[in-house]
Amino acid sequence: MTAIRPLRINGLNAHGDFHVPMATTEAALVASYARGAYAATKSGGISTAILYEGVIRTPAFVLENLLNAGLFVEWVVTNVDQLKAAAEATTRHGKLVSVEPMIDNNVVFLICRFTTGDAAGQNMVTIATNALCDDIVARCPVPLKAWYIEGNFSGDKKASFLGLVTGRGRKVSASVTLKADVVERILGTTVQDMLDYGQVANLGAHLSGQLGAQAHYANGLAALYIATGQDAACVAESAMGITRMEARGADLFCSVTMPNILVGSVGGGTSLPSQSAGLNILGLKGAGHGAALAEVVAATCLCGEISIVAAIAAGHFTRAHENLARHR
Amino acid sequence: MTAIRPLRINGLNAHGDFHVPMATTEAALVASYARGAYAATKSGGISTAILYEGVIRTPAFVLENLLNAGLFVEWVVTNVDQLKAAAEATTRHGKLVSVEPMIDNNVVFLICRFTTGDAAGQNMVTIATNALCDDIVARCPVPLKAWYIEGNFSGDKKASFLGLVTGRGRKVSASVTLKADVVERILGTTVQDMLDYGQVANLGAHLSGQLGAQAHYANGLAALYIATGQDAACVAESAMGITRMEARGADLFCSVTMPNILVGSVGGGTSLPSQSAGLNILGLKGAGHGAALAEVVAATCLCGEISIVAAIAAGHFTRAHENLARHR
Amino acid sequence: MTAIRPLRINGLNAHGDFHVPMATTEAALVASYARGAYAATKSGGISTAILYEGVIRTPAFVLENLLNAGLFVEWVVTNVDQLKAAAEATTRHGKLVSVEPMIDNNVVFLICRFTTGDAAGQNMVTIATNALCDDIVARCPVPLKAWYIEGNFSGDKKASFLGLVTGRGRKVSASVTLKADVVERILGTTVQDMLDYGQVANLGAHLSGQLGAQAHYANGLAALYIATGQDAACVAESAMGITRMEARGADLFCSVTMPNILVGSVGGGTSLPSQSAGLNILGLKGAGHGAALAEVVAATCLCGEISIVAAIAAGHFTRAHENLARHR
Amino acid sequence: MTAIRPLRINGLNAHGDFHVPMATTEAALVASYARGAYAATKSGGISTAILYEGVIRTPAFVLENLLNAGLFVEWVVTNVDQLKAAAEATTRHGKLVSVEPMIDNNVVFLICRFTTGDAAGQNMVTIATNALCDDIVARCPVPLKAWYIEGNFSGDKKASFLGLVTGRGRKVSASVTLKADVVERILGTTVQDMLDYGQVANLGAHLSGQLGAQAHYANGLAALYIATGQDAACVAESAMGITRMEARGADLFCSVTMPNILVGSVGGGTSLPSQSAGLNILGLKGAGHGAALAEVVAATCLCGEISIVAAIAAGHFTRAHENLARHR
Repeated sequence: MTAIRPLRINGLNAHGDFHVPMATTEAALVASYARGAYAATKSGGISTAILYEGVIRTPAFVLENLLNAGLFVEWVVTNVDQLKAAAEATTRHGKLVSVEPMIDNNVVFLICRFTTGDAAGQNMVTIATNALCDDIVARCPVPLKAWYIEGNFSGDKKASFLGLVTGRGRKVSASVTLKADVVERILGTTVQDMLDYGQVANLGAHLSGQLGAQAHYANGLAALYIATGQDAACVAESAMGITRMEARGADLFCSVTMPNILVGSVGGGTSLPSQSAGLNILGLKGAGHGAALAEVVAATCLCGEISIVAAIAAGHFTRAHENLARHR
Repeated sequence: MTAIRPLRINGLNAHGDFHVPMATTEAALVASYARGAYAATKSGGISTAILYEGVIRTPAFVLENLLNAGLFVEWVVTNVDQLKAAAEATTRHGKLVSVEPMIDNNVVFLICRFTTGDAAGQNMVTIATNALCDDIVARCPVPLKAWYIEGNFSGDKKASFLGLVTGRGRKVSASVTLKADVVERILGTTVQDMLDYGQVANLGAHLSGQLGAQAHYANGLAALYIATGQDAACVAESAMGITRMEARGADLFCSVTMPNILVGSVGGGTSLPSQSAGLNILGLKGAGHGAALAEVVAATCLCGEISIVAAIAAGHFTRAHENLARHR
Repeated sequence: MTAIRPLRINGLNAHGDFHVPMATTEAALVASYARGAYAATKSGGISTAILYEGVIRTPAFVLENLLNAGLFVEWVVTNVDQLKAAAEATTRHGKLVSVEPMIDNNVVFLICRFTTGDAAGQNMVTIATNALCDDIVARCPVPLKAWYIEGNFSGDKKASFLGLVTGRGRKVSASVTLKADVVERILGTTVQDMLDYGQVANLGAHLSGQLGAQAHYANGLAALYIATGQDAACVAESAMGITRMEARGADLFCSVTMPNILVGSVGGGTSLPSQSAGLNILGLKGAGHGAALAEVVAATCLCGEISIVAAIAAGHFTRAHENLARHR
Repeated sequence: MTAIRPLRINGLNAHGDFHVPMATTEAALVASYARGAYAATKSGGISTAILYEGVIRTPAFVLENLLNAGLFVEWVVTNVDQLKAAAEATTRHGKLVSVEPMIDNNVVFLICRFTTGDAAGQNMVTIATNALCDDIVARCPVPLKAWYIEGNFSGDKKASFLGLVTGRGRKVSASVTLKADVVERILGTTVQDMLDYGQVANLGAHLSGQLGAQAHYANGLAALYIATGQDAACVAESAMGITRMEARGADLFCSVTMPNILVGSVGGGTSLPSQSAGLNILGLKGAGHGAALAEVVAATCLCGEISIVAAIAAGHFTRAHENLARHR
C-alpha cells in the first residue's frame, strides 16, 4: 500500500489535504493518480459534494395477476409507516427513506431505499428489508404466490442503468478547474489537446455502450476500496458515472459525478489492521466520516481521470506503462 | 485467504478437483460459494470451455473528413500484414488476431485484438498497439489530425455493451446439470423453486438495465482475482454475462457465459508471495495455465450463482447474512 | 387500412370487443395480429391496466458551479407550488405531477412530469414547461449561465433506458392466459414449444442489448399509430418493454408491459378524416378515451407477440412471409 | 405530404439538389427540417457516404450441450460455402456476406449478414436464411434439439446495442461544416451557443441511457419512410446513432452517423401510388437507387438535428411549436 501525495479537497464533508492510500501493485497507476492530485491541488483543490444518498434493496413479490398486483401496491403505500417501523427496528443506523413500486404485470418489485449512517450498509439493508417483507407477509391481505428478498433489480454488485439513473450508495460530484499553466507544466500537455481528446473519448463511450462515460474509475476505486476495507466486489457497481472536461476561458473544467459509491468508515473490513491503517492515513476512521470518505473517493477518481486524459492526449500513456510497469 | 472445498471441473483446459482460493473477509460469501461447489461436484462437476479469446485495445484516429476516413481505412486494410509485424515485434507472447475499423464520420477507431498467451496482457497489448500506431503514423499517406492510443472504446476497466457482445480477454462458458436430489439435500430447496425465482431474477435484470443477466459474479471475481494476483480493477469489466437456469427433466441446468475474463497465470501480480501461493493452491501457476485459470474463474462464478439463487429461492439469503456476517 | 377481427379486452379502461384498425401494406402482419387476437379472445380476452401516467419534459439549467447547482435545486424544491401554477396556467388539460432534479455537477436537469388528459400531449408539456422555466428565470435568485427547454434527457422520440425505467406517456400492462387447446388449434403449436422458444428469445434480447425484451412491438405500434392519427415518430420510444411467457399449469401466461405508450384520443392528427375513422372503428374518438386507447395499444401488441412467438416456435414464420408477402 | 426545399448533397451515391418528401401533419416539423436543409445547402451541401452494408437475420440453434455447440460451430464454419449457395439460391439480389456465431453455452446464434441490392430486404433475408437453416438441418451431423429462424438477436424492429455497434441495413454518415454567418442569419443563433447546448445535450444522452446520442432522428425517419413506402416500424431500429457538433475555427462541424438505415428504392411499399410519387420527387425510384436513398435519409436527419439544436440553443423551440402547431 502506498499513499499519493497531499490532495486538497474543499468539500461539503471532506476538507483539507488528504494522503490517499492505494493498494495496488501497479506503480504506473499510483504515479498517475499522484500526478492528477498534484495538478488539482496546484489549481486550488477539488470541490466535492454528496448529491444524494441511499442504498437500495429490491424485494420482489409475485401475485396471482395484474389486479392483485395493483391491490398489493395500494396496500403497501397505505402501510408504509408501519413497514418503516418494522424495517428500522432491526438497525440503529439504517433509516428507510422511501419504498417505490415497479410493476411488471403480476410481479412487483419494491425499491426500498435506506440511509445507512457511516457504514456501507449492504448487510444492514438486507436485514431491514427482510423485516419489512416479513411484516408484509404477516399482514397484507392480498395473497402472495411467492416473494424474494432481492429481485435482481437493485444493482447490487453489478453495473446497471438503474444505478446510473437513481444512484445506489452515495452519489458524489467532484470538480476542479485546472489552470492552463498547470496543465502545461505538470501534465505536460495543453488544455486544447485535452479537450480534443475528450471529444473522441466521449464518442468512444457512446459507441461502445458504456453506462455513462469515463476512463478508468475502476483503478482508483479498487486501490482505495481495498486499502480502506471496503467490499472490492462493489467496484463493479461503483465504476460508473460521467467525466466531463470543458473549456473555462483558457482553463480546463473537469468533473466526475459518480452515483454509486459504496463505502463506510465503520463496519465491514474497516477494522482489520491494514485497512484500519488505511483509514487512519486519511484521518477518516470511525463514526462521523462516511460522507467525507465518499467525497475522497470521487476526488481521487477525478485525479485519475485528469491524469489519464492528459497522458493519452500527450501521447505519454504507453511510455508510462513501458517505464513503470511492474517488472516481471 | 481461504479456499473452498474441491470443485470438480471437466473443462477443455481445466480438469480435476480444484481448491479455489478466495481473498475476502466475508465469511458468508465463502460458505456460499463452497456450497455451490459442493452441489456442482456432487452432480458430476462443471463443464467449461473457452469460446473466444482476445484482448482489445482501440486507438482512435482523427482525419480531416469522411473521405479521408475512408481512405485511411482502406490503407489500413491493405497494410494489415505489416501492421501485424510492427505490433508483434514488441512482444514474445502477443499475437495480433484482427484489426477492425469502426468509423464515425472523420474519426476511426481500430479495434486491435490480440491473444496474449498465459498473461492477462493489458500492458502487452498497449505497447504492441502503440507500435502499430507508430507504424501507421510513419507510413500512412493520409494526413492525420490526431491519434490516441485508446479511444475509450475498448471497454478497458469498465462494463460496456461492446464487451458483452464481442468479448475482451477470454469468453468462457461453464455449465452443470444439478440433480434434483442434490438441489434438495445440499441446497435446501427445489428445482421448481429455483426456476420460479430465476424467472423473476431475469425480469429484474431486464428492468434494471443490466449488461446481460447475472446475480453476483463480482463477489467471486474480486475474491479470486485478489487471491491470484490479477488486476482487481478488471472486476468492473469481467462482472458481466449471462446466467441461465432451465429445467432438464426433473433436474436443473445451470450455466454462466462470461465474455470478459481477464486473468493470467504469469505476469502482473502473479509472482507476489501471497498471490503466488493462491495460484499454487490451484496448481495453475506459471506458463501453460492461463486458459485453465479462466475456466476456473467461470466455474467458480457458476457456483456462486447456484448458491445465491438457491438461497433466495429458499428464503435463506438473509439468514446467512445474519449468522455469518463479519462480527464487528 | 384494415381492421383485425374482434379483440376482447377486459381492462380497467377498455372493455369490450374491439376492431383494431391497422395501417400497413404488409398482409402477413395483419393476418398475424388477427391470429393472436383470435387466440386471446378465445381464451377469455386480455386483461389490461394503466400502471402509471406522465409525459416528461426535461429542461436543463447550467449553473456556475456545484454549489450553485445545490442552491438552485433547493430553490426549485421550495417553489414547486408556484412553478406548478405557472406551468398549468398554459393548459386546460395538463397537470404537473412532479418536478425531480438530476444533477451532474453544475448542470441540473428538471424532470417535469405531466398528466395530459386524453391528448398525447407532447406540445402541451413543452409549452407548460417553458412557462415553468420562464418563472424560474424571472424569480430564482441563483444566477444561471444558460438554460434549455430540453436537455436531451426526456427520451422524446427515442428509445432510452430512462424511458424503460421511469416511463413516459402511459405505462400499460396487458396479459392473457392462453388455454393449451387454443395454442394447439389456433396457433398450430404447443405451450411447451412456445416456452422453449421464449427462453431462447429472452437470451437473444439480453445478448443483443435490447431495452427490455420483446419481439416486434414496433409493427403493431406503427400500424395503429398511423391508423389513429398518433405521431408515428413516437414508435421509436414506444417500442420498448417486456414480453413474458410462462407456464400456468398446462396453459400459457403471456404478458406485455409497455412503459412508453404515447397516444391521444383528441388532438394531434386524430381529427384528420381517415384517422378519425380509425378511432371511430374502435369507438374511442374524442374526450374520455385516452386511457382506453392506450390499453388497446398494449393489448394489440400482446396479440402480435403471441402470434410471432407461436409462428417461430412452430417453424411457420418464414412460410407466412413467403405466402402473404406483398406481391410486387 | 410536403417536400422540403432543395437540399444539396455531395455524396458517394447521392449527388445534387433533392426535394425531400415528408409525410407528416406537423407543420413545425417540416419548417424545421427545411430550415436545416437551407443552412446546410448555403454552407455548400452535405457530404455523405455509406460506411457499411448488410441486413442481418440471426437464427438460433439449441444443442444438447456446450461440446455439441462447439462441434456445430465448427461444422458451420467449414460448410459456409455450401450454406451460402443454399441461401443465395432463393434470391436474385441477396448475397450472403458473412455468417458469424455467437455462443451462449448450448445455444448458438448465427449472425447471417446479407446485402440486399436496392431493396430494404427484410423478407428476402428471412427466406434466404430459412434455406440456409434447412440446409444445416439436412446435412449437419451434430444433433439439434431445436432451431428457430430468428433468435430475437438481430435487432429487427427494435433499438438494440448490437445494431449500434454492428449496423443493420446501411450505415451512413453525413456531415457539413456550417459557416458562422449562416448559423447567425439562417438559424438565428451562434456557433458558440450551439456548441454549448451540444455539451448539455450530450450529457443528457449519457444520463438517460440512449443508444448513441441524437435529438430526434425519428421525426425525419418517420416522415420520409412513410412518404417513400418504407416500413414505418423500422423507425424503431433506425432511430439510433451519433450526432456530433464541433468547432472548426469559427464554423460549426455537424455530423450524423446512423448505423441502421433500412430503405429500398424497389420492393415493399415503394410501388404504391403515393409512395411512388414520393420517390419520384427525389428522382430515386427503382433499381440502382437504394444506396442514394439511404444517403438522403441520413442527410435529412442531419438537417433536423441542426435545426432543433439551433432552436433550443436560441430559445426558439417552444415558440415554433406554439406558432406552427397543428390547430386543433
